[in-house]
Amino acid sequence: MIIILKQNAPEQRVQALIDDVKQQGMTVHYSQGAETTILGLIGDTSRVDEDKLRANDVVFDVRRISEPYKAANRRFHPMDTHISVGGHTIGEGFFHVLAGPCSVESEEQLLTVAQSVKASGATFLRGGAFKPRTSPYSFQGLEADGLALLREARKITGLPIVTEIMSEAQLDEFEDVDILQVGARNMQNFRLLKALGRTNKPVLLKRGLSATVEEWLMSAEYIMAGGNENVILCERGVRTFETMIRNNLDISAVPLLKSHSHLPVIIDPSHAAGIAWMVEPLARAAIAAGADGLMIEVHNNPKAALCDGAQSLDLDQFANLMKEVRRRTEFEGKSAD
Amino acid sequence: MIIILKQNAPEQRVQALIDDVKQQGMTVHYSQGAETTILGLIGDTSRVDEDKLRANDVVFDVRRISEPYKAANRRFHPMDTHISVGGHTIGEGFFHVLAGPCSVESEEQLLTVAQSVKASGATFLRGGAFKPRTSPYSFQGLEADGLALLREARKITGLPIVTEIMSEAQLDEFEDVDILQVGARNMQNFRLLKALGRTNKPVLLKRGLSATVEEWLMSAEYIMAGGNENVILCERGVRTFETMIRNNLDISAVPLLKSHSHLPVIIDPSHAAGIAWMVEPLARAAIAAGADGLMIEVHNNPKAALCDGAQSLDLDQFANLMKEVRRRTEFEGKSAD
Amino acid sequence: MIIILKQNAPEQRVQALIDDVKQQGMTVHYSQGAETTILGLIGDTSRVDEDKLRANDVVFDVRRISEPYKAANRRFHPMDTHISVGGHTIGEGFFHVLAGPCSVESEEQLLTVAQSVKASGATFLRGGAFKPRTSPYSFQGLEADGLALLREARKITGLPIVTEIMSEAQLDEFEDVDILQVGARNMQNFRLLKALGRTNKPVLLKRGLSATVEEWLMSAEYIMAGGNENVILCERGVRTFETMIRNNLDISAVPLLKSHSHLPVIIDPSHAAGIAWMVEPLARAAIAAGADGLMIEVHNNPKAALCDGAQSLDLDQFANLMKEVRRRTEFEGKSAD
Amino acid sequence: MIIILKQNAPEQRVQALIDDVKQQGMTVHYSQGAETTILGLIGDTSRVDEDKLRANDVVFDVRRISEPYKAANRRFHPMDTHISVGGHTIGEGFFHVLAGPCSVESEEQLLTVAQSVKASGATFLRGGAFKPRTSPYSFQGLEADGLALLREARKITGLPIVTEIMSEAQLDEFEDVDILQVGARNMQNFRLLKALGRTNKPVLLKRGLSATVEEWLMSAEYIMAGGNENVILCERGVRTFETMIRNNLDISAVPLLKSHSHLPVIIDPSHAAGIAWMVEPLARAAIAAGADGLMIEVHNNPKAALCDGAQSLDLDQFANLMKEVRRRTEFEGKSAD
Repeated sequence: MIIILKQNAPEQRVQALIDDVKQQGMTVHYSQGAETTILGLIGDTSRVDEDKLRANDVVFDVRRISEPYKAANRRFHPMDTHISVGGHTIGEGFFHVLAGPCSVESEEQLLTVAQSVKASGATFLRGGAFKPRTSPYSFQGLEADGLALLREARKITGLPIVTEIMSEAQLDEFEDVDILQVGARNMQNFRLLKALGRTNKPVLLKRGLSATVEEWLMSAEYIMAGGNENVILCERGVRTFETMIRNNLDISAVPLLKSHSHLPVIIDPSHAAGIAWMVEPLARAAIAAGADGLMIEVHNNPKAALCDGAQSLDLDQFANLMKEVRRRTEFEGKSAD
Repeated sequence: MIIILKQNAPEQRVQALIDDVKQQGMTVHYSQGAETTILGLIGDTSRVDEDKLRANDVVFDVRRISEPYKAANRRFHPMDTHISVGGHTIGEGFFHVLAGPCSVESEEQLLTVAQSVKASGATFLRGGAFKPRTSPYSFQGLEADGLALLREARKITGLPIVTEIMSEAQLDEFEDVDILQVGARNMQNFRLLKALGRTNKPVLLKRGLSATVEEWLMSAEYIMAGGNENVILCERGVRTFETMIRNNLDISAVPLLKSHSHLPVIIDPSHAAGIAWMVEPLARAAIAAGADGLMIEVHNNPKAALCDGAQSLDLDQFANLMKEVRRRTEFEGKSAD
Repeated sequence: MIIILKQNAPEQRVQALIDDVKQQGMTVHYSQGAETTILGLIGDTSRVDEDKLRANDVVFDVRRISEPYKAANRRFHPMDTHISVGGHTIGEGFFHVLAGPCSVESEEQLLTVAQSVKASGATFLRGGAFKPRTSPYSFQGLEADGLALLREARKITGLPIVTEIMSEAQLDEFEDVDILQVGARNMQNFRLLKALGRTNKPVLLKRGLSATVEEWLMSAEYIMAGGNENVILCERGVRTFETMIRNNLDISAVPLLKSHSHLPVIIDPSHAAGIAWMVEPLARAAIAAGADGLMIEVHNNPKAALCDGAQSLDLDQFANLMKEVRRRTEFEGKSAD
Repeated sequence: MIIILKQNAPEQRVQALIDDVKQQGMTVHYSQGAETTILGLIGDTSRVDEDKLRANDVVFDVRRISEPYKAANRRFHPMDTHISVGGHTIGEGFFHVLAGPCSVESEEQLLTVAQSVKASGATFLRGGAFKPRTSPYSFQGLEADGLALLREARKITGLPIVTEIMSEAQLDEFEDVDILQVGARNMQNFRLLKALGRTNKPVLLKRGLSATVEEWLMSAEYIMAGGNENVILCERGVRTFETMIRNNLDISAVPLLKSHSHLPVIIDPSHAAGIAWMVEPLARAAIAAGADGLMIEVHNNPKAALCDGAQSLDLDQFANLMKEVRRRTEFEGKSAD
């Protein structure tokens, strides 16, 4: 971290700043130029508060050189993280497809979809029991009954389950869920992130609608700082000015995350585009860019789906997608386990 | 709501769609043109799920004519909402300044700031006890101790207090807080919104970093649908491509909200710009645009503030700002009560 | 196009509106519901001015059903456009790589790069002679001398050349350029677009930094409406809130354009990311998503490049990229001609 | 400017970099820390090419401390720029309203509007002769005939005229126009900016749809670097994710520009919102934030306007707006001359 001082900053005030930084465990490298004086902070700057430095009136500007995240940083953890869950390994070199309905609607719906996606090659069953909906008047999910149906589907198909948790108050209720999903709207629900950090459950952390990659990794850091290193990052499109599609899949996020972090990266093309026919081309791009998996919405009868029907594949469309996914992950030298 | 049908949609399927919509309590107006057939839905469409309609394969497109929010909608509630809290009235025609430190740091700090902002004309004391910070390594607030200090400051100064609640699990702890603030990152924490809807506490709902005005009003609707109509909207800048400032204050939101909703609108220029010297010009713009109040960060020693120091005014700067605010709110014919 | 009328609109005024629309060659389908009256416009609505309709005070809202572009619209031109240029065919089923330096700097530089990229498999030589730079103090290109060097490089290598035109006043000077590039900042320089429409030269139209896909196609429409159908669309990243990279490659644009238009689509991963090491993963994604080609910045000595050095590949990196490109385009069943 | 070197950069390569920078007239301040080595560049860094430095493989990062614009920079020109045009002075301390139709449509329309806005207090007549329209099928303006009508209106009313120039090829034709407007879509049409820099005509430079404040000032710098210092900046709303209005007026731009530059700042609330009823509240905010003037679209019959009717005020609405403007500019202590 570099602190650029204001011109003519009183020496005494500068010394006080240096002392303050040293007390935070930093070494300070003082460098006085003809017009600009710079303090170079050496040490673990992830705990240094930029805002506080900026407020000091001898400070002209503060520039971070190293990233503010540490546990999630590949620089400090060069090896790829592999997460073992439900008999599978998620991470670099493997490729998993998490499929299922946007929301669990009935026993028949869920079992039909679960058995079909398993037959087509999905290795995880996703499905929403508690649904974060923009409108209070939209279907909010089957809640506890939905969780029970997911457990039943897991029992019958053997597929581990992924479902969204919306509050730290639900942790007990989600005890036996295989992967806890944090939705885009809760990416910075820090109470929830901290609570998840105190467990050792795999967490699928979706990117916020307009979160930078760094903010996203800082949310992963919240979970990891608590001791839980089982974090899977899931890109699901970001908000831009474009109106023709719901969100813009940020394909650059895959190489950026793979370079800056060691955590697994999953792509959700269903939410990104919001249109069923775009799922396949985006899935192809995700595989080629280096993603470790896909999250796909599948419904046995999309036109009657209680949520996100427009972006859900039907069972046949999903089976066809999986053929293409297999052909391409083989080309990349990856497989499900 | 208008449903545009696909060309050559089978009559039987269209009839099924019409029946389905009618069962939701809508009247359907069928209109067949040479090339386009349109269904006009008449009734309370706020409960109709657009996504579900879109997924129906006889549907080409769905267009909403009326807004999806109802309780927050001026069309159905033409009179301005006035909220009585702590002996004050918040809403159209009045103007309040909510001032205080970003975070409560100590008894001395809080009391010094509280007494000073009161003397300068603030009518509410704001201060964070539980702080949502991007980094897990940043100061997270004094938590319960911070709340206790806020209560003490209220007792001494008589200023009602505003502080941020981060989870529905904290509701009991915040029982006697005068205005519960929902932060930008929690604007779509629907569990929290629903819980707040079951109380009758005034809620200051900050706009999410990239929430549309409609999404914001839908979050207000979550609280109001639960029975709590005491919602104050707080604009605090939105995320754009601009890098010179932290957020872009969306001044258009003031007339938009005043036109589409009856709820009070407050502006937070401190968070919008993130720079202390910009607080005053943005505050002037907010007053002129028709806002009902301001939320301002004030610290007795900004350069030592544990959070947001760069955007905090010191006590003198705030006193000067208030002179300007008074001069201008008088011009607009508004006062604090 | 659907016009939704205001409630209680005076009959006479509505009739005047209907007459006005009919005079523009439209058929009008009048549909009166209990609460909403709708006019359905049937015919070629691409020439109807939405803004003008909206300004009519009996109009509540106007919604387009069909796209405002026509010549660029796949609905009216279902067959893919194939552009013959320099002995090659650009369009669906083929895959071309346009490579070369950001700016032409010297004879030695250009010939070295041209011969090397040809040997590696590029089929077009790109290079800037006139450079649009954000700062007036940055290198502005060799201008006419740069064009002369491009012609020389074409003569020696046989590679057709692609270079940027910045004004309609330059058309004569660019007479023998094989593909005229319109840069992102000029995507809505309508004088230039109209002038290009009066030629029959292939035009590579880059997407504006924050242009929607529809606006981009409308700019293509400007060229095509003038009679020149040889338009190639080039996605080069859009502006978002992300700060870690220069632009976000909009991979969704590939399937969107392929679905809505018949024009060839090229991806420029060099400008999108602005970082050399990200070119390859983005190129892989582009191929998989269905792009018809790539535009790549290559320099014999990137660290001395007069522009965009940070995103340029050196000759070896480009050779390696091309091996990967070939392996992947073969997988997709595409080749350069 | 600070250059942060990579760890273990070979000494010889670093020395070559230092020599290169010195040859550009910079003084270099070398500062070696335990882990980070930093070069501080002192001198006129506005001509230093960041991209080129970044491409050097011993460079880890480059951070600008001073702004890349110089002629437009208040640091180097502390006094406010005042532009004399048509008997008026534009700049800090004054307040002008530039009003008129989006496009010149007929002699009767233009003269009616011109005489009326003059009577209401406007000091400049605006009107488009050459119109940049998104669609090639929309009305493109009366072109040369429109210019002739503007000259006639000036002769009759005495109001100086403001109209948009779209290409450097039009300079002669616009010879006697009082203020040349550069539209948002041409903000980075560098050929046009350079040509305007060679004249001494006042230029009203609109901000690009998603241009940062710095990029905007760099475009002003293009004109000023050529010798023409008569640049007026015009904010007209930026593109965001919001869909309820056309553009988001960036009110923060006023204090930012006033602080970083000495150039006059005008606000165009008509284009920002795109809705007539929002013009007044945005105009009020602009005045309070410190703008030096307003640009307002006025039409004698908005519902029949050939462009932008929805956002145009009619003659009475404009007269009422001007009463409010006068009341408020008096409060700010400003007047038209």
